[in-house]
Formats: sequence, C-alpha cells, structure tokens
Amino acid sequence: MTGEFALYIAPVLIADEWRQAAETGRFQPDNPSTASPIDRTYPISSWRDCEAALEASCRAANALRSIPAETRARFLETFADAIEASADELCALAHEETGLPLAPRLRDVELPRTTGQLRAAAEAAREGSWAQATIDSAANIRSVRGPIGPVAIFGPNNFPLAFNGLAGGDFAAAIAAGNPVIAKAHTAHPGTCHKLAQLALQALNNVGLPLATVQMLYAIGREDGYRLMQDRRLGAAAFTGSRHAGLALKQAADKVGIPFYAELSSINPVVMLPGALRERGAELAQEFAGSCLMGSGQFCTNPGLVIVPSNGEGERFIARCGELFDGAKPGTLLSAGTMHGLQQAITQLTAAGAIPVTTSTAVDESRFCVPNTLLRVPGESFLRDPAAFQTEAFGNAALLVTSESTEQTMAILRSLEGNLTGCMYSSVNGDDDADYDLLAPVLREKVGRLLNDKMPTGVAVSPAMNHGGPFPASGHPGFTAVGVPASLIRFSKLDCYDNVRPQRLPPLLQDANPLGAWRSVDGNWTRAPLG
Amino acid sequence: MTGEFALYIAPVLIADEWRQAAETGRFQPDNPSTASPIDRTYPISSWRDCEAALEASCRAANALRSIPAETRARFLETFADAIEASADELCALAHEETGLPLAPRLRDVELPRTTGQLRAAAEAAREGSWAQATIDSAANIRSVRGPIGPVAIFGPNNFPLAFNGLAGGDFAAAIAAGNPVIAKAHTAHPGTCHKLAQLALQALNNVGLPLATVQMLYAIGREDGYRLMQDRRLGAAAFTGSRHAGLALKQAADKVGIPFYAELSSINPVVMLPGALRERGAELAQEFAGSCLMGSGQFCTNPGLVIVPSNGEGERFIARCGELFDGAKPGTLLSAGTMHGLQQAITQLTAAGAIPVTTSTAVDESRFCVPNTLLRVPGESFLRDPAAFQTEAFGNAALLVTSESTEQTMAILRSLEGNLTGCMYSSVNGDDDADYDLLAPVLREKVGRLLNDKMPTGVAVSPAMNHGGPFPASGHPGFTAVGVPASLIRFSKLDCYDNVRPQRLPPLLQDANPLGAWRSVDGNWTRAPLG
Repeated sequence: MTGEFALYIAPVLIADEWRQAAETGRFQPDNPSTASPIDRTYPISSWRDCEAALEASCRAANALRSIPAETRARFLETFADAIEASADELCALAHEETGLPLAPRLRDVELPRTTGQLRAAAEAAREGSWAQATIDSAANIRSVRGPIGPVAIFGPNNFPLAFNGLAGGDFAAAIAAGNPVIAKAHTAHPGTCHKLAQLALQALNNVGLPLATVQMLYAIGREDGYRLMQDRRLGAAAFTGSRHAGLALKQAADKVGIPFYAELSSINPVVMLPGALRERGAELAQEFAGSCLMGSGQFCTNPGLVIVPSNGEGERFIARCGELFDGAKPGTLLSAGTMHGLQQAITQLTAAGAIPVTTSTAVDESRFCVPNTLLRVPGESFLRDPAAFQTEAFGNAALLVTSESTEQTMAILRSLEGNLTGCMYSSVNGDDDADYDLLAPVLREKVGRLLNDKMPTGVAVSPAMNHGGPFPASGHPGFTAVGVPASLIRFSKLDCYDNVRPQRLPPLLQDANPLGAWRSVDGNWTRAPLG
Repeated sequence: MTGEFALYIAPVLIADEWRQAAETGRFQPDNPSTASPIDRTYPISSWRDCEAALEASCRAANALRSIPAETRARFLETFADAIEASADELCALAHEETGLPLAPRLRDVELPRTTGQLRAAAEAAREGSWAQATIDSAANIRSVRGPIGPVAIFGPNNFPLAFNGLAGGDFAAAIAAGNPVIAKAHTAHPGTCHKLAQLALQALNNVGLPLATVQMLYAIGREDGYRLMQDRRLGAAAFTGSRHAGLALKQAADKVGIPFYAELSSINPVVMLPGALRERGAELAQEFAGSCLMGSGQFCTNPGLVIVPSNGEGERFIARCGELFDGAKPGTLLSAGTMHGLQQAITQLTAAGAIPVTTSTAVDESRFCVPNTLLRVPGESFLRDPAAFQTEAFGNAALLVTSESTEQTMAILRSLEGNLTGCMYSSVNGDDDADYDLLAPVLREKVGRLLNDKMPTGVAVSPAMNHGGPFPASGHPGFTAVGVPASLIRFSKLDCYDNVRPQRLPPLLQDANPLGAWRSVDGNWTRAPLG
C-alpha cells in the first residue's frame, strides 16, 4: 500500500462524520462527454461500514421520533436553500459525471425540481395531512402513519439531482416521513453525491437534527448489499435501477418482510390509433421523436414501444419518425454501462427480428453515445415472442410495432408486462372512440399512469401522480415514487393506538388537532379539532 | 377406482359451476369435540383446477371493471342476508368442524361480525371514499384506487366465518375493491366453506354479477400453491395461517411482484408496569386470564407474553394467574394440528428453560385439548435466547417473564420480533408514567396496535383499526387486514389518469363526482363536485 499514500480517497459519511471507508476496493467515475476517467477515487465499503451506518441510523431513528416534524421540515428547506446556493458547483459536477447538458437540463430543470421536491416534502411534513390520521371516536381507536425506520436508498444514474439518493424524491419522502436515510451514492456520479451529502450534513447541523439522519456510502459489494437488505434494523429500501440488480436485492429484503420499493424497468407503450394518425400524423411523429430523443431517451418513462396501424398513414408516420431520428444528433449517454446496455438491447431486438428504420450507424468514439435507433416489427412477429420484443432499450432507441387490426393491438397489449405508463392517441373527431373503449381497459391494467394524447416523458410532481405500476415497473402496484404527499406513504407504517391515554397520543391524533391537519374522523375528512 | 363409486366427493366451484375436482388426493376433516373424523370427503385439486380457476377469474375481473360498484355492494348485502337466513345450518357446521362453541361464540359473535363486515364493505364500495380519489385540477392529473385483479385467499382455521376465505374480511375487502376471489377453503372446516360458497353463488346469480367472481378449491398441493402464487394472472393474495407455510407462499409471490398480504405469527406482548400491579393486581390477573383463555386462546391477538416486575406484587400476580388457569376448564382446540402445535410449542419453551406455573396435566383424550398452561422465565434467561422464548404457543398457553428493572424490560422489548399488538398497563395515579415514557416508544416500533390498560384480544371492525404489524406479524407494516375501508386498499392498485378525456374517466374522477365520495382536490378533502 505504500505507493498509494499520495492518493486522495473520498471519505464516506457514517455516524455523524466523514471518515475513511473500511475499503474492499476502489473505483473512478468516467466523464461521458470525453469517454475518459475522472481523476477522483472513491472507496467500495466493506460490511464494517454498513454495520456502523446501521447502528448510527437506528440511534437517529429513535431520536427523530421525539423531534417535531417542524424541525425535519426546516432541515429539508435549509438543504434546498444550500443546494441553490451551490447550484453552479453541483451542476458542473453533475455535468462532468453524467454528460447531461448543463442548461437547460441540469441548471434550469433538474435542480429546481430537486429543491421544489424538498420544499414540498417539508411542507407535507409540517402540515401533517399526509399521515392520514384516522379517528374512531366511539371506540377510541386512532391510527396514523408513523416512521418505518432507517431507509436505504439506491438512486439511479439518470437523474443525478432529482432522484439522487442524497437529495431526490426518495430522500425527501423518507426524511419527511420521519426516517433517517442510508444512501448508496451512484458510482457514475459519486462527486455529485459527495457534494450533496456535505450540504445535507451542514443543514442537519444548522437545524439541530441528529447528524446520522443522513449517511452515505459510495459503493458496497454484492453480498454486502444482500446482507444489508436482510438486516432487520432496516425499515425499508428504495431502489431505482437495473432489473437484474434490483430483483436480487428485492429478494433479500422480501425474505424478512422489509418493504423494498423498486423501480425496475418500463418500455412505456404508446398506441397510435388510426384516426389520430389520419388527423395529425406529422405532428405526432414530431411529438414522439422529440419525447424519445430528449435527454438521449434516458428517462424511466421514455416511450420505447409504439403501436401503429399497418396502413399508409402508419408507413408515413414510421418514415417521418425515421427521418427525425436520423436528422437529430445523438445525445451523450450517462456511462459506458448505459452505452453497452443500449447496444446490447438493440442487438437483442434485431436478433429477435426487428428491422432498422433509421440508417445512421456512424460511431462517435470521443464520447459515450449510440446512433439514434428506430426499429420496426410486424404485430404478428411481436406476438410470436413478446418477451424478446419487450427488451428495454434504455436510451435513444425505440421499437415500432405495426398492427393489422384492433384485435391484434389488443393481443399485443395483453402480452405486455407491467409498465409505468401507457399512452393512447386518438382522433379528436371521435373516429377512434370505439377502438379506445375496447383497448384502454386492457392497457389500464398494465400501467400505473394512463395518458391520452400526450407523451409520458414528463413526470409532474403532483399529488395525483403515479410514478409506479404493476411488476416489473415497480415492486408493488399500490405506491408512487413521485408526488407529494403520496410518495411519503412508502416510508411509513400504520400505527394504531387503542385506548391510549390522551396525553400519550402523537400530536396528529390528539383531540385538539394542534397541526390543523386533515383527518378522517368517524368517516368524514376534517381539519377541525375533535369534540 | 371401482370400489369408490359410492363415495360422495364434494365438488369444487370453478368457472361458474360446481364440478368434480381434477383430484390428486382426498381428505376428511375431524370433529374436534369428539376427536374423530367427520364422514365427508373432499378433493385435493390438481393444477388443472387452478388453471381453470385462474382463467375464469381473469374473465370475471375484466367483466367487473365495467359493472358499477353498486352491483358489488348489492351482492355483498344479498350474501349477508343469505348467511343470516342460513345461520343455524352454518353455525352447526362450523361448530362440528371447529369445536368452537355454538353460542355465544359462533351464533352471537362471529356470524354477526361476518355479516357486519360484508355490509360495511358493501357500503364502502357503494360510497367510494375508500378509493382516495385525488385530483390535481391545474395539471389535469387524477388518480384513484382501482381493482388489482384476481385475489387468492387462504383463510385461517380459527375464524370459520369472520375470516373465512369465502365470507370473511379478506373476501369482503377484495370484492368491495372490485376483484374476483379464488378461495382456498380451510381443510379443517371445508363443509362450512362449501355452504358459504353455495350461498355466495346464489347471491351472485341474484344480483347479476359474473359467477366466477367467487371460486373455491378445498385444497391444493404445495407445489401447485407456489405455482399459483407465481402466476402473473393473479393480482394479489391474502394468507392467514402458519408462519412456515405462509413464508414459502410469500416467497413465490414476491418473485413476480404479486402483493402477498400475510398474517403469520404474533405473541402480543403485554407489559405490566409495577404501579399497575400495586394498584389493581388481582383485577389484572382476572383480565389477563380471561383474555388468554377465551376461545381456548386461539386468537391471532392472544396475549402470549406478559412482562411482570420481579417483586412481591409480580409474584402475587403470577400465583393468581396460575390459579385461574388451573381452575378453568381447558377449551376444545380447533384441530389435531392445533393441539400438536401447542404441545410442541410448550415443549420448546420448557426446553429453553421456562418453568410451569400451572399444575394441571390431566389429559382428556375424548376431544382435542391441552391443559391450560402458564409458564414463567426470568428476564435474564429470556434475554439469553429471545428467539426461543418467542416461540408462538397458539392456544391456551402463555409465558410470563419477570423483569428486574425498567432497563431489563427495555432490553426484552428491544429483542422482540414484530407483533400485531402490544399492551402497556400502568397505574392510574401516574406512578408509572416515567417508565411508560421510556418503554412505550420501543414497544411502538414493534407492533401494529399499541394498547393502554386493555387486553388485545378484541379486534374491532373500526376504520382506525390496524390488524397488521411489522414482520413477521404481517408481510408489510403499512396495511391492515381488519377495518373498513382501510382493508380494501390492499386489493387495489394506484390508477393514474393523465390528460385523459373527461368522458373516459371513471366516475370517482369525473368533475361531477356522481357518487359524492370524499376526494382530495388540490390538497383539500371534499365531497363537492369540481369547478
């Protein structure tokens, strides 16, 4: 080890302090825009770090139980302020590590979304209605959502700020619901995570929350990951990432009944009904290509499968989309892994029988990227091997399926796995209404969010949003990962108080309703005090 | 097979009809009151029956989506009426098969609870507030709880009516939420299940619901059970029963992301604080013994672990409880399996070091029963092997733990697994308040329902009830199996509608709010129409 003395290894944040990791290895991230390594080194933690983080997290969870929600709210707001104050540095780091455009993407869209989510979660925590306090006054039984315990968060590669395990939606929701977080930084953007963790620690200190409310490791070995998921000190886990890695972690958590909220894969089917293409085919080609290529298609809700009628309008739509794909410059991909994954998926789809619509094959080796790729396959072929044609091509690629009839479209929809979203485009004049009525109920059962005449890429932070869906889109079709206050519910358990003396009840269940939260009292929602 | 021609084999209810099972074997239930077999034979179904039931259930699920909630409500009410009209026959069957007292238990408590649950679920379905419709009017994003798909229900042995897969809480909740049910009858009371299924089928027919909304098999092989749980046509499963069987089924369902709501085991810890015993020890002994021996202790919420102070009052309490246990006639147990399980658990607890307080060892071989058994162990011993001392003794038995100090009680509570309930008894005069404040937060994290000065046995059908808890009490700490409307949520998924045209929205999301349900509109709960 003597030769490595000079090397700076980034510290991990465990038990109130930055410390050198108990390492089992090291890694360096890449700069996707130059396809070359970044000169920073990060540790892979051993179980010793996990154990220390778990212990500290349990202590923090206990302390948090007797700290008012107001303090958690102030932390989230102070943290949001700090992120804004460091916006330049954060966005520069995120750009360097992910290749995502500095502006408008990171600076003007993702960072404001991140701070907006933190502030919305703060307001939800302060206000209390999210916890759905329920009072049966005759029986004197009362229940409310309480904290679930330490939450492990594995963030994805594609939103270095808004879904970051140290500042994103899962983080905000877990803290707002009263839980400490153990975040695993993403190995593709560890510097961004490091900076966010620094800001979080400072904000915790400023408002007087336990510092171990936020802890961070950069990476852990596979077996340690499974061990962490099976540790009963953990309250819940949230994972957004690859299906393979997610399923293995989920299996470990499931064994001991630890809720594991996973977002695993989604190809987001879009149905273009015949009348819609007749009416506005050129416009829809533009809309689809724009949505599919935005951010190099690296969205969970990217439209990856489009069903179009096998007719003249369908062919014109396909041709237009092909031109738009060929005419657009391929965006930079997040990592070498993303690039290889996309290349592999395109190979699998073509091996299954999909045919390229796009012609561009130019390879730009100066950065991580893949030519914009549009493939096509007849419905009949799709139905012979629906699993193969549902291979997720994460990035700037999509598969068009031509359908001979409403019945064939129905069969295709029936063959789909669960997805986050599903879109139906129909004519304004009502020509497609009969088809819609037949097909929409089938699509409805397969997706968390059903859209009309709109691409799925935008995921509004709305109380009515569902960013979730039937397996494998997520691990449980009843929860959303985006939207406040609904996303907080994932990190809560149902705490019932039966005949508990009044002064011992949590504020949300006290007769006086000191927070003025919405509560369901004897079947009616009200903000009023009881009695 | 010729020799068996004369034998009547009860038919299964699959795909709208009573039919002979595709059998892999047969079984006969026992009469626990006489410890002898009942002269009725039931089939063990093969996968062929499961397959047929799944197919029919999918068709029923599709049909149900376009049938108004009102029709489901009328089915549940018609079924409740039919159960009341057949009360004598049903209770006689249930008594014969379970040994539970005809009155008051079956006739005056469990049957009215069953019909009450069915009617409450009907009202919830009709009224619609259960589905928590949420509208973001500015973004035009709307979400609501929709049906999850076919629900497989495995009911327990201890409530042949109120938790029966064909009439109990899970059944009522699954149907009210819009799903068809595939029930596995309990092999200890198949005749009761058969009769309930007959009444259900008639009620379906009366109101015009698809007949395959309710299907029933009596038994299936283990491998077929796992296969059923992994079949993606299934929407969810509910299981109440033994930990071992439940965990194996859960593992199968978890693999493919099918929500598996399990109620697996619970010993329901009770803490008797020193002041409470000083104040009213004799009364509390009576209360505990009454609760623990009621129904031969065969409740999920039976108080199976009582922590008492290691002092004079504690000893007097123990002695009194011992006398009450010895003085009461042991009740009949539900089955030979229950009896053997209880005997085995008592053996395990004594092998671990627990010492009998009770003296009665008389064996009554004319029926399934075990002497009332009270064991004791010092806190120090308990803490040396907390897992062994948490062995669930399902039936008329309990373990008393003597604790030297508040710290020891705290350590005992910390060592507990998840439970459905936890009780704290404290003095009225405030002497125990400091202890309560230290201990209750620890107990709170371990249980779904926290009680004060009250035994946990009664599980009120209240909107604020939580009959659930941290693993292994249940498979997810966020859901309750008892209580309307909360129990319906388990059998729903979150259906989001983004920019969907107004006439295509489900009634609960339409501007006019035709059902007048409570909805969260832009953050405020209201029954008013939109705009």
